[in-house]
Amino acid sequence: MTLARVDELDDRLVVVNMNSTRRGALSPELYATIGEAFEAARNPRIRAVLLTSEGGFFCSGGDLNTLIERRKLSEAQRKEKIDGLHHLIRLIRSSPVPVIAAVEGGAAGAGLSLALACDLIVAAEGAVFTAAYVKAGLAPDGGLTSALARVVPRPLAMEMCLLARPVSAERLAAAGAINLVVPAGETEAQAHALADALAKGPRNAQGTIRALVSSGYELTEAAQLDAERNAMARLQGGAEATEGISAFLEKRKPDFSK
Amino acid sequence: MTLARVDELDDRLVVVNMNSTRRGALSPELYATIGEAFEAARNPRIRAVLLTSEGGFFCSGGDLNTLIERRKLSEAQRKEKIDGLHHLIRLIRSSPVPVIAAVEGGAAGAGLSLALACDLIVAAEGAVFTAAYVKAGLAPDGGLTSALARVVPRPLAMEMCLLARPVSAERLAAAGAINLVVPAGETEAQAHALADALAKGPRNAQGTIRALVSSGYELTEAAQLDAERNAMARLQGGAEATEGISAFLEKRKPDFSK
Amino acid sequence: MTLARVDELDDRLVVVNMNSTRRGALSPELYATIGEAFEAARNPRIRAVLLTSEGGFFCSGGDLNTLIERRKLSEAQRKEKIDGLHHLIRLIRSSPVPVIAAVEGGAAGAGLSLALACDLIVAAEGAVFTAAYVKAGLAPDGGLTSALARVVPRPLAMEMCLLARPVSAERLAAAGAINLVVPAGETEAQAHALADALAKGPRNAQGTIRALVSSGYELTEAAQLDAERNAMARLQGGAEATEGISAFLEKRKPDFSK
Repeated sequence: MTLARVDELDDRLVVVNMNSTRRGALSPELYATIGEAFEAARNPRIRAVLLTSEGGFFCSGGDLNTLIERRKLSEAQRKEKIDGLHHLIRLIRSSPVPVIAAVEGGAAGAGLSLALACDLIVAAEGAVFTAAYVKAGLAPDGGLTSALARVVPRPLAMEMCLLARPVSAERLAAAGAINLVVPAGETEAQAHALADALAKGPRNAQGTIRALVSSGYELTEAAQLDAERNAMARLQGGAEATEGISAFLEKRKPDFSK
Repeated sequence: MTLARVDELDDRLVVVNMNSTRRGALSPELYATIGEAFEAARNPRIRAVLLTSEGGFFCSGGDLNTLIERRKLSEAQRKEKIDGLHHLIRLIRSSPVPVIAAVEGGAAGAGLSLALACDLIVAAEGAVFTAAYVKAGLAPDGGLTSALARVVPRPLAMEMCLLARPVSAERLAAAGAINLVVPAGETEAQAHALADALAKGPRNAQGTIRALVSSGYELTEAAQLDAERNAMARLQGGAEATEGISAFLEKRKPDFSK
Repeated sequence: MTLARVDELDDRLVVVNMNSTRRGALSPELYATIGEAFEAARNPRIRAVLLTSEGGFFCSGGDLNTLIERRKLSEAQRKEKIDGLHHLIRLIRSSPVPVIAAVEGGAAGAGLSLALACDLIVAAEGAVFTAAYVKAGLAPDGGLTSALARVVPRPLAMEMCLLARPVSAERLAAAGAINLVVPAGETEAQAHALADALAKGPRNAQGTIRALVSSGYELTEAAQLDAERNAMARLQGGAEATEGISAFLEKRKPDFSK
């Protein structure tokens, strides 16, 4: 049985499919698959990465049977294990192309970290987002507290992390924290539709945009203005801008496929 | 007449009760009481601090009769006075256990600073949150502008602080900035219920979580990932994790009372 | 035909009117007009700046006919051109008095950057906010990614910038990102009403408040507490505080007109 696999779709998208006979629990195999996906995404014909799942639940995070074994490790060895997960999060956050999560059923623990690390999030109606680390005497990892700070107000982030309260896709969407809530079973199709729209766009500009939007939450206004200026001056000299602006002035659709 | 008092409830909670015959105005006595509460919270059996009030209004902030006297002080002396309030805010923000505000009626000025410094906020239906410093020719203190930045979008923070517009609990809750809106008269009971839920949880992990959630709004993603890794590696080696994970695997409720 | 003009209203407000026969496209003339407005705003009798438009659309951003010419420039020269826009944004962000945008119809590109740089935003029902840089193979400038980080959750900012999806005034207002949504044709009147309310307030305190609210999104809690303390200690010694507190204690309206 394969626990996770990576596919390419239409020669333009990389799809990470988390098998959820184990509700998409994180595993060394899944780590390897995600690593493989972002390796593939470096190919210029790839325009987006999709994180999706089979079996009705996005990802339930780490396996507690594995975690209990970590007591036997030294603290330094435990840090190494956690850095394995954090390497995946850094791959998502530094992806050259947009990353979309299709959250069917829900996401929990490090599965929630994975979902919120993505640029765009499509969730099924009634999907629940849970950070239940506290129930196991633990604190969030996988960049969850960083992502929550960029996505929800502090009282809601505290509620999720201190009380392990499941939060619905609908409540998150109302706050602008999720892009799209769709009927159950349709998240992957809708995420593909978003990816198709992205795939028609300018790959280099999109990569620059996702980095700029991300740094907006970290830099001062002054530093971010300079980052925008440098990015814009570079992009204005590129082939994508020539095509994009020309198409606009010629009232035709731009062709960014080259 | 006592203007504020601190109680212990069920041997696990510290409750700061702001008497509001003066609508819970801040006073040296209240400062001392809050200081006493956080001193008490250092005891390992204490699991949460509640800020609440009697008389139907959470806290109306500083007393303008006192403020007008400050003109006679030097600027350095005025800074010392303000640092008295800021010391309270730092006590709340660095509390070892979660802090919950039960906002009956409303909160104004430094009373709003107190409420928003808390981790979780329960408010009564129709309660109003007001930052009216501008009406007195002053600017917010007590960390209000820091808290607002972590809780609401900038245009709303500007509206509250520049125009002194009262904002309803309902509007803040819709944005995720307040955790729970309940019928008038029920905020304290509901805040107790949240505190009871917290009191059943792992004290050390909860203290770590509230610090991590807070730093998420301040650190870069890279620095926050490292903070999460260090916290997780430490907690994985502790007694709370052993109990929490064991209980999960044994399908029983964890006992974090020890 | 004048493309933009600056008026003074009631001797207290500076109004920048962007003529939108060209849908308020940014132009050297508009740049000059905005510069003139903030020069005028340094006069102590000026209490607010309004950015508004004629012709039913706030501002559509840069002119693509101009942009295409920039290919011929060196990257350093392009940076200089972009710094022209960024200078305007810095003028808005460092304004001594509050700045209000009256968004009729919508705002796009650098027009959206202009709108979101303002402290308060009034928008017409059905107005749409669009960051379509990506369609032209470009990334946002004018501080847009900085402003979005302070105004909306990251997934929504990504949706706007990566997919160029128009977002309605209503959706932004629900998230607290816009202050007021009013019937089409009424944004300027409503923005004037806000400006009138501001004009009755204390100019120096308001300038301090808008700077503090802004830095709240950039500084650590510790640094922001110190910034608040310093501002408060200074304002407590000023004439505005004397008038504001006295008026409150004497139960009369304060007079901040001097």
